[in-house]
Amino acid sequence: MTRLDNSRVIKAPTGPELNAKSWLTEAPLRMLMNNLHPDVAERPEELVVYGGIGRAARDWESFDRIVETLERLEDDQTLLVQSGKPVGVFRTHPDAPRVLIANSNLVPHWATWEHFGELDKRGLAMYGQMTAGSWIYIGTQGIVQGTYETFVEMGRQHHGGDLSGKWLLTAGLGGMGGAQPLAAVMAGASCLAIECQPSRIEMRLRTGYLDVAAQTIEEAMAVIEKSCAEKKPVSVGLLGNAAEVLPELYRHGIRPDLLTDQTSAHDPVNGYLPIGWTVADWVEKRESDPEGVAKAAKASMAVHVRAMLDFQAAGVPTTDYGNNIRQMAKDEGVENAFDFPGFVPAYIRPLFCRGIGPFRWAALSGDPEDIYKTDAKVKELLPDDTHLHHWLDMAREKIQFQGLPARICWVGLGDRHRLGLAFNEMVASGELKAPVVIGRDHLDSGSVASPNRETEAMKDGSDAVSDWPLLNALLNTASGATWVSLHHGGGVGMGYSQHAGMVIVADGTPEAAARLERVLWNDPASGVMRHADAGYDIAIDCARERGLDLPGISS
Amino acid sequence: MTRLDNSRVIKAPTGPELNAKSWLTEAPLRMLMNNLHPDVAERPEELVVYGGIGRAARDWESFDRIVETLERLEDDQTLLVQSGKPVGVFRTHPDAPRVLIANSNLVPHWATWEHFGELDKRGLAMYGQMTAGSWIYIGTQGIVQGTYETFVEMGRQHHGGDLSGKWLLTAGLGGMGGAQPLAAVMAGASCLAIECQPSRIEMRLRTGYLDVAAQTIEEAMAVIEKSCAEKKPVSVGLLGNAAEVLPELYRHGIRPDLLTDQTSAHDPVNGYLPIGWTVADWVEKRESDPEGVAKAAKASMAVHVRAMLDFQAAGVPTTDYGNNIRQMAKDEGVENAFDFPGFVPAYIRPLFCRGIGPFRWAALSGDPEDIYKTDAKVKELLPDDTHLHHWLDMAREKIQFQGLPARICWVGLGDRHRLGLAFNEMVASGELKAPVVIGRDHLDSGSVASPNRETEAMKDGSDAVSDWPLLNALLNTASGATWVSLHHGGGVGMGYSQHAGMVIVADGTPEAAARLERVLWNDPASGVMRHADAGYDIAIDCARERGLDLPGISS
Ligand SMILES: NC(=O)c1ccc[n+]([C@@H]2O[C@H](COP(=O)([O-])OP(=O)(O)OC[C@H]3O[C@@H](n4cnc5c(N)ncnc54)[C@H](O)[C@@H]3O)[C@@H](O)[C@H]2O)c1
Ligand SMILES: NC(=O)c1ccc[n+]([C@@H]2O[C@H](COP(=O)([O-])OP(=O)(O)OC[C@H]3O[C@@H](n4cnc5c(N)ncnc54)[C@H](O)[C@@H]3O)[C@@H](O)[C@H]2O)c1
Repeated sequence: MTRLDNSRVIKAPTGPELNAKSWLTEAPLRMLMNNLHPDVAERPEELVVYGGIGRAARDWESFDRIVETLERLEDDQTLLVQSGKPVGVFRTHPDAPRVLIANSNLVPHWATWEHFGELDKRGLAMYGQMTAGSWIYIGTQGIVQGTYETFVEMGRQHHGGDLSGKWLLTAGLGGMGGAQPLAAVMAGASCLAIECQPSRIEMRLRTGYLDVAAQTIEEAMAVIEKSCAEKKPVSVGLLGNAAEVLPELYRHGIRPDLLTDQTSAHDPVNGYLPIGWTVADWVEKRESDPEGVAKAAKASMAVHVRAMLDFQAAGVPTTDYGNNIRQMAKDEGVENAFDFPGFVPAYIRPLFCRGIGPFRWAALSGDPEDIYKTDAKVKELLPDDTHLHHWLDMAREKIQFQGLPARICWVGLGDRHRLGLAFNEMVASGELKAPVVIGRDHLDSGSVASPNRETEAMKDGSDAVSDWPLLNALLNTASGATWVSLHHGGGVGMGYSQHAGMVIVADGTPEAAARLERVLWNDPASGVMRHADAGYDIAIDCARERGLDLPGISS
Repeated sequence: MTRLDNSRVIKAPTGPELNAKSWLTEAPLRMLMNNLHPDVAERPEELVVYGGIGRAARDWESFDRIVETLERLEDDQTLLVQSGKPVGVFRTHPDAPRVLIANSNLVPHWATWEHFGELDKRGLAMYGQMTAGSWIYIGTQGIVQGTYETFVEMGRQHHGGDLSGKWLLTAGLGGMGGAQPLAAVMAGASCLAIECQPSRIEMRLRTGYLDVAAQTIEEAMAVIEKSCAEKKPVSVGLLGNAAEVLPELYRHGIRPDLLTDQTSAHDPVNGYLPIGWTVADWVEKRESDPEGVAKAAKASMAVHVRAMLDFQAAGVPTTDYGNNIRQMAKDEGVENAFDFPGFVPAYIRPLFCRGIGPFRWAALSGDPEDIYKTDAKVKELLPDDTHLHHWLDMAREKIQFQGLPARICWVGLGDRHRLGLAFNEMVASGELKAPVVIGRDHLDSGSVASPNRETEAMKDGSDAVSDWPLLNALLNTASGATWVSLHHGGGVGMGYSQHAGMVIVADGTPEAAARLERVLWNDPASGVMRHADAGYDIAIDCARERGLDLPGISS
């Protein structure tokens, strides 16, 4: 088992020539390799794509064998991949998936990091994250878009869909949180982001995700106030400790239009700077006195959350961005910490109810023009969705492609299959230089059970029921997706989620069109079904409008 | 939600006329109803089929809606069933399954009886057991056959394949254990079964599962010795407490040829009579002092296991039949309790390595003659398998059909699809009066992860890896099974197993033949793959002989 090989540099082949026997097998081949492209993967030499240890293949031997097998796979064969290792080739039929994947799944009683670690050490396991082990990660565009969609939905719910002249207050400019200033500006709002490490602010300025740095509240607020008055969104990174700055802002009578937080509060030892500490102290004490750090950090989080609750009481829409800061504060005695909601129930669920989620596609040609042409096609087919048009323009302007050119758009039931069919026609006509693959994150409407995140606080209490993602995977397999995956763990870790992925190829053939129509309808429809079953009116209405056949919904 | 309805008596329609639009939807309709036939289900009025609370549908409303939906389902549609409730109908294609089922699945951290119970009470869940919620339970024939196969394999390993003149010692003549005397006699061995309740002995005599009752060791051993001398297998039920009788037999120098146990040791409060207690005391104290009962029972189990270890040390092949008695004894200080093996690693795994498992089929015509004709066909196609011929003869003679006539046979990779194709031809030619359905238990070679039972002590330590059953379900979906299911819990309970089921219809068409060939090859082949991957030589050899394409196996 070779897990580390510094000599390997993997890039997907591009252009119209096949290495495999058809586009249905060439596509997973290129997307597996693309996941390990030096611009895409975090530690490609270790096969790690993102999210700590989320891998694309179990080890280099497995990677090589997957590639060899895909190159020889026939159009009536299916390859099985078990935790990143290719384990069998079976005869199926042309409308069946070419690859079926199961990663990191453990019988519940043994579904712990400890047991996983033992298996992993012995070469029997792999952590698949969500899109790492299912070969449809395409870089940081995803987090920017997810954050953008969240902010846009906050704008819809709290400010009549118009964030111009409004500003968002947050903290944390780390790996994920660093997307906040860019996403806010894209959504039309100014953003004040508090960050305690100068290096993080500099990095975000350098990559164009942040506009301005500030050292004091006065300095920062001057920029924010001006930008709001002129309705020209600007993002400001303020050096400071959120637990100190938030209460001060509140005392000064300053009131943002939206409030959230993306410090790494979920990890009190490593992720949250305690009040009054220098960053140097923090770094040193994490080694010498981790328990002391955690204690101080949690006490500061309580202060931080109390300030958030004060803002909320003063009418500021406030949300937890999945960093568990409410739980930490509650542990410290802040009884009403959960008075402000998590972002999924508050902002993402209404989208999920209509099957809207992180739809994405990549150009196998490798040619950015292919994506720009699909961008234009999306605008043509969805002429009235101004937020979407805006996103496409901003994404083109501000986000560089990583590896194969790709695009992410949150679209829902009724639109996804129309886009897929249109792309397929563009391949058929030669307008695009090669086929495209169409997929999504596992964090989607019908594909995940994760009671601490995507399925937090479901209306009927069915947060932990994982029949739904399993049915989603079976349905996508029955509908003819090109590859389908079932994972355990993902973003929230061992024991806490089960989720399914799917990718389908638009190779320009009529057979692909028939499959695209089924898969890109059924996949989001299964999400609408799941939310309708849980009793959400938006989903029940959507199901009725779209004519879904749901025998479980009486009326 | 109506869970109890005493007015409902469900029997599957029989004969060649359709109620649904095709045999692919008529089949799940009839098999769902057959699971609730009064001769098949344990508590049909509550929709409970077997195994405590294993249900066929969530409630009577769900049952009615499943039936309605199957009656109208088209041949390019697929019905999704979520924990016994029909939740959606989607357009797929003719080679896709008509029904996809997920039952009782929970995100691992919440996969407990407590959480399941809450959901169940609120109408959000259903316990699917294995074949209850996947509509392919066919009565007690299954347990007789499983026990028979185990005893035959014990005979193969320890007595050169010939059990004539040999005898098996065991205890427990309950729901499952009562199959032991019949299975032993079918396998050619005499059987001495110790049972503490006279009612249980009488019941087994009455139904023909047991030949003779005895009150004393002398009486019992006289029958056993005579039967062995004459090589005419006989079963004897000895009234007594196993923990008292076993040591006494040992002291008398009596040595059986095989030793096991099926008292309900897994449940110390309700399942095991302590030494020196009367049954009346036991029944009373279970209510008034459950902890006292458990304590006394576990102490007696230690005595019981010590006697089993003594027999083993004296050369008697000894095995644990999945009742957890080793663990109980170990808890009581019997350090070497696990010196004798569980029955799966010892006897079933070599079969699983060749894809051999509980293959079964049912005649949708309702006509026993259809099964007798298939029995003859099996003999014709497998002319050299004397054990199988013997089983078929004995089953016909000794086991009454329950509900739709059905047959179980343990056959493996390379034989299952031949039988399926032959049955399909018999339907096509009119030799059979209606189509047959072909399926299996979830307890099979490639379809289950269950570290305390089916995947106990896997060679590579991969007991808890559940990627395998998930891949099995995805593969059967991709191959064109008629219905496919994914369950959690099953025989060992919440948190302890994940498993997959499949059923396929032989309706006599060429399309069905193509699907049968794929599914009935791929399904057992995925079991051979799983065991080859774990390093079992038998499986690796079988894979090589059968020409399986396993990229994960180097050589
Ligand atoms: N979908 C989701 O649920 C979701 C998505 C993205 C991120 N998150 C969560 O958001 C958090 C941030 O993720 P990340 O990848 O950016 O983490 P990260 O560790 O890379 O970044 C955290 C940043 O917060 C800064 N910080 C720490 N304490 C601070 C304080 N007291 N004041 C100001 N700044 C402080 C750190 O210097 C760091 O730059 C995590 O908890 C993550 O789990 C959740
Ligand atoms: N595949 C498997 O792993 C598998 C299959 C079948 C049964 N089992 C296990 O076998 C056990 C028996 O199952 P069942 O359904 O027959 O249970 P059951 O409770 O119906 O029967 C147990 C029988 O044992 C008798 N008994 C209890 N204590 C005794 C004693 N000290 N001496 C003599 N007789 C005693 C009881 O009177 C009862 O008739 C269970 O633990 C079950 O889990 C496992």
